Amino acid sequence: MIIVMTSGAAEEDIARVIQRLEQDGYGHHISHGVERTVIGAVGAPEAEKEQLADQLSRLPMVERVVPILKPYKLVSREYHPETGVVKVGPAHFGDEKIAVIAGPCAVESEEQVLEAAQVVKAAGAVALRGGAYKPRTSPYSFQGLGEEGLDLLAKARELTGLPVVSEVMAPRQIEGMIDRVDALQVGARNMHNYDLLREVGQTGMPILLKRGFAATVQEWLRAAEYVAASGNLDIIMCERGVRTFETETRFTFDLAGMAAAKQETYLPIIADPSHTTGDYRLVGPMALAAVAAGADGLMIEVHPHPDQALSDGPQSLTPASFKRLMDQVRTVAAAVGREMA
Amino acid sequence: MIIVMTSGAAEEDIARVIQRLEQDGYGHHISHGVERTVIGAVGAPEAEKEQLADQLSRLPMVERVVPILKPYKLVSREYHPETGVVKVGPAHFGDEKIAVIAGPCAVESEEQVLEAAQVVKAAGAVALRGGAYKPRTSPYSFQGLGEEGLDLLAKARELTGLPVVSEVMAPRQIEGMIDRVDALQVGARNMHNYDLLREVGQTGMPILLKRGFAATVQEWLRAAEYVAASGNLDIIMCERGVRTFETETRFTFDLAGMAAAKQETYLPIIADPSHTTGDYRLVGPMALAAVAAGADGLMIEVHPHPDQALSDGPQSLTPASFKRLMDQVRTVAAAVGREMA
Amino acid sequence: MIIVMTSGAAEEDIARVIQRLEQDGYGHHISHGVERTVIGAVGAPEAEKEQLADQLSRLPMVERVVPILKPYKLVSREYHPETGVVKVGPAHFGDEKIAVIAGPCAVESEEQVLEAAQVVKAAGAVALRGGAYKPRTSPYSFQGLGEEGLDLLAKARELTGLPVVSEVMAPRQIEGMIDRVDALQVGARNMHNYDLLREVGQTGMPILLKRGFAATVQEWLRAAEYVAASGNLDIIMCERGVRTFETETRFTFDLAGMAAAKQETYLPIIADPSHTTGDYRLVGPMALAAVAAGADGLMIEVHPHPDQALSDGPQSLTPASFKRLMDQVRTVAAAVGREMA
Amino acid sequence: MIIVMTSGAAEEDIARVIQRLEQDGYGHHISHGVERTVIGAVGAPEAEKEQLADQLSRLPMVERVVPILKPYKLVSREYHPETGVVKVGPAHFGDEKIAVIAGPCAVESEEQVLEAAQVVKAAGAVALRGGAYKPRTSPYSFQGLGEEGLDLLAKARELTGLPVVSEVMAPRQIEGMIDRVDALQVGARNMHNYDLLREVGQTGMPILLKRGFAATVQEWLRAAEYVAASGNLDIIMCERGVRTFETETRFTFDLAGMAAAKQETYLPIIADPSHTTGDYRLVGPMALAAVAAGADGLMIEVHPHPDQALSDGPQSLTPASFKRLMDQVRTVAAAVGREMA
Repeated sequence: MIIVMTSGAAEEDIARVIQRLEQDGYGHHISHGVERTVIGAVGAPEAEKEQLADQLSRLPMVERVVPILKPYKLVSREYHPETGVVKVGPAHFGDEKIAVIAGPCAVESEEQVLEAAQVVKAAGAVALRGGAYKPRTSPYSFQGLGEEGLDLLAKARELTGLPVVSEVMAPRQIEGMIDRVDALQVGARNMHNYDLLREVGQTGMPILLKRGFAATVQEWLRAAEYVAASGNLDIIMCERGVRTFETETRFTFDLAGMAAAKQETYLPIIADPSHTTGDYRLVGPMALAAVAAGADGLMIEVHPHPDQALSDGPQSLTPASFKRLMDQVRTVAAAVGREMA
Repeated sequence: MIIVMTSGAAEEDIARVIQRLEQDGYGHHISHGVERTVIGAVGAPEAEKEQLADQLSRLPMVERVVPILKPYKLVSREYHPETGVVKVGPAHFGDEKIAVIAGPCAVESEEQVLEAAQVVKAAGAVALRGGAYKPRTSPYSFQGLGEEGLDLLAKARELTGLPVVSEVMAPRQIEGMIDRVDALQVGARNMHNYDLLREVGQTGMPILLKRGFAATVQEWLRAAEYVAASGNLDIIMCERGVRTFETETRFTFDLAGMAAAKQETYLPIIADPSHTTGDYRLVGPMALAAVAAGADGLMIEVHPHPDQALSDGPQSLTPASFKRLMDQVRTVAAAVGREMA
Repeated sequence: MIIVMTSGAAEEDIARVIQRLEQDGYGHHISHGVERTVIGAVGAPEAEKEQLADQLSRLPMVERVVPILKPYKLVSREYHPETGVVKVGPAHFGDEKIAVIAGPCAVESEEQVLEAAQVVKAAGAVALRGGAYKPRTSPYSFQGLGEEGLDLLAKARELTGLPVVSEVMAPRQIEGMIDRVDALQVGARNMHNYDLLREVGQTGMPILLKRGFAATVQEWLRAAEYVAASGNLDIIMCERGVRTFETETRFTFDLAGMAAAKQETYLPIIADPSHTTGDYRLVGPMALAAVAAGADGLMIEVHPHPDQALSDGPQSLTPASFKRLMDQVRTVAAAVGREMA
Repeated sequence: MIIVMTSGAAEEDIARVIQRLEQDGYGHHISHGVERTVIGAVGAPEAEKEQLADQLSRLPMVERVVPILKPYKLVSREYHPETGVVKVGPAHFGDEKIAVIAGPCAVESEEQVLEAAQVVKAAGAVALRGGAYKPRTSPYSFQGLGEEGLDLLAKARELTGLPVVSEVMAPRQIEGMIDRVDALQVGARNMHNYDLLREVGQTGMPILLKRGFAATVQEWLRAAEYVAASGNLDIIMCERGVRTFETETRFTFDLAGMAAAKQETYLPIIADPSHTTGDYRLVGPMALAAVAAGADGLMIEVHPHPDQALSDGPQSLTPASFKRLMDQVRTVAAAVGREMA
């Protein structure tokens, strides 16, 4: 932590900062520049010094406080240079292979989810997605089938052998999901729901952690640190677009942010081109781009009949176009030295 | 709902759209323009047609679907022209008076919260704020005193008579809060936590609903509609800044968004200049600006000793500066034809 | 400048940084922390060290480089504690009075501009605005009357005595403007047009510098530094909204950014609630908010007949509503200890 | 154009809108819904009706006006289904091949630019980039060598045969560039500089039009329409990142926006991973992602000695890493059915 004093800071102002640092067990280095005095805090490494930084920034004549260390540790690549592998049932995420999760946005009926599961398996997906609980902007929209949807997912798993990834929106939904799904997804709207992060961390199940649509890469990594600090390191990160002024796409796909995150964390990272674009015509190009940029996998919406979907029809692929895309993904994966799972 | 066809749409493409509309019980009007055919859906008013709109947008040769009606109803000013009044204990929000909620960011100790409560009451605040559960970006930051903090808030209420507003982060915290606080705050990070919105809606307690920092005004109003649809119309809206590229302030205070929201909803709206700026030097100017812009109240952080605060010290006012600010707020309120509560 | 080394940095990596600093004439301080070594650059104060910072950040094992000094000097409040006064003809900006510039978005006809000039003068405006050159998003929109428009502005000035502020979009337009307008406005779309900034700086005329809609406060201040470095310190800053995800208003009015800028620069700052909101119903509340937040003046669009305006009709006030607003501005100005110019 | 009336609109309000439409030569269709009346404007197709739309939105009881037609025409894929080919000297952009422009950010010396030109040619680039005029945020940064830099670029062209692309910041620079460079680049900061757009359009030279960092895809296309409306259709579009809240990368690379733009326009589009990320470690992944997403080419910064660069060193590749990247680009291009130019 570096404390920058304002230009007119007196000896007593500097002494006050040093005293505060000593109170928390820090040593210090002082550097008297021509226009500014800068104080470096030394010692007692801790992942979190934000509270002290906040307090120091309120002392008289302190201009600003610059943190030096990263605010996360357990999920950091600094401590685990190799990308970790997370297992979801028989599927692996984070090894050299590209793992694809596919399926409908929401579970709507037995017929729909079983058909979708068979279709995505045949095309090469290694896991099935499907929402039983749906976070919808409006209270009047279809909110998912709930427990009944979970049963249908379990049935699809039995039929196809595909492990199931499904979104959890509240702690009380966890119990009913443990036996029926294989990985719990924390959605973008709940990435800052710290209570939920702690709860899913304690299940020991693999967690798919989507990036909040207004979360910085640093905040996304700290959300993962919440899960990790609850004792669970089986975390798959998922980039799904951030909110910007651009309205041509539903969100702005931040592949450079994903690549930057990969440098910071050893956790596997996949990408969701369906939710980010909201437009089936853009899903293909963005899926290929994500793989070329280094994604460890993809999450793609596929619906047997997109024009009848109860949610997010405009971004769902048909079975036929998903199959074509998987062939292209295979080729691009090979071009960057990887293969399909 | 208006359906715009692409320029090459054939009769059969148009027929397909009309058939789909009829399937859901809508009539239609067709307008053949020089370059585009436009179809208007007529009939069966519903607050929510998003699902159909999504499906229509997947039909061949449909360029885009434009919604006409607003996706909220219960909280709309269209149906309740007068701003509603929400009572929090003895305090009123939404009448002609400016109501100020003040207190520390987090409850830290009995001494701190009792001192703060007395100070803010003396200066003219009508309610006490204080967090017992704190949403923190890092798992290693101070997370609040929990139940113990709630007890201290109840004690402060007893001492001063001020009703208490405190943040709820999870449904299971609600039970312990019912008797000890007077209004439940849903924070910016949980505005999209629909499960929580429904739960707090069912308590019947007054709800303070902060705007998500990446939520549009429309989404904020729909979040209020979630609470309202659970049977609770005692909602106070709170603008607290949105996330932008600007880093000079913690968030960007969207007073124009607040003023736009006031045109759309009859719910009272207050503003939080402390969290939005993150800088005590800007809290004063922004508090005055909010009142001039039409806010029905303010939420301001006051800490007896900001340089010792366990969270958000840099944005907390000292008792002395809060008192000065309240005097200025009184003057500006009068200038726009209002008075202090 | 502070150079943070990565955790595995060796002595030779540190030596390389020090050698590079010495090459540019800097001394250094080294602070060996538990996890990071931090090097402070000392000496030779310069407003601009970005190039060196960029180069240092490319050296091996350098994690990041943190600048300490602000990248502007001439416009900084650090060097001129008192807000400066800029004169535009007989009008003053930056003293204790609120100065209002008003008039139509674009000059459309003699009748329109003369009527508007008389109306805004009668209501208390101290300067007339009106665009002869209009930056329009589409090449097919009305682009302004050009030289003819300048003549009409000069005529309006003659009639009313109001000094004229008008936008310059290109260096070659300057010559024709020198005699016919009293201040040159650099619009939001040209804030990063450094060639134009230098050119207007050399005229010696007062400059109204609008904030770019994607410019940080720091970039806005550096744009002012461009003008100042060309020898011209008669600069009035103008906040006019930034671009965000919110679509309810045309731009997001950043009054907190304006207040933050006032702490950094001694230049007078005014606010434009018309362009930022794009909605005449929000102009009033935002004008009052700006004055309450500390603006030194306002820039407001007034059109004799907004529903016939050739540009930006939706945000223009009618003469009657402008008059009412000016009365309210007067009251709010008084509430914050100021009066109308 | 669709005009939506507010719920209480009377017959006379509707009549007023119709009268206004007729005044401009439009017919109309009226659709009386249950809650809203909607009026469609019919006839007289024009690319630009914004002025009328603005005026209509000011009429009493008009809720909003929804445009139906796209505001650009000459650059639209609707009128030219096939992607166009733009020639820059011997290089082609927009055919099936991936064309790479590479070179230093700024021209610094004869030695540097000649070395860079040879290096990038050897690795497979088809054009040389290099700035003689540099838009710098600070007036104290290196501003480019100007005319001398242009001479050096011409010398590099003579030596290697590579055509030269260089940025123009002001109309008066054009004359000196016509003979010494082969394509004029309009930078992100000048995308809204309409005067410059018109001027470069009139030269008849190929134009490289970078997307403004706060420009929507629609605004970018309209900027191209400005150039096209001046008679010049030889336009290469270049995505280079947009500004968001994320600070991990300099800008946020909007590849989905690029893909969306490709659906709208027939102009070739390339991508610049160097400026968008500002970090040499991310240039490679993003270059590959851009090609996988359908970019027609790339623009990449290469410097013989990045740690000595006078501008943007942190994002420049070394000759060796550029060579490696080109090999990877070749492989990914093949995977999506294209080859290197």
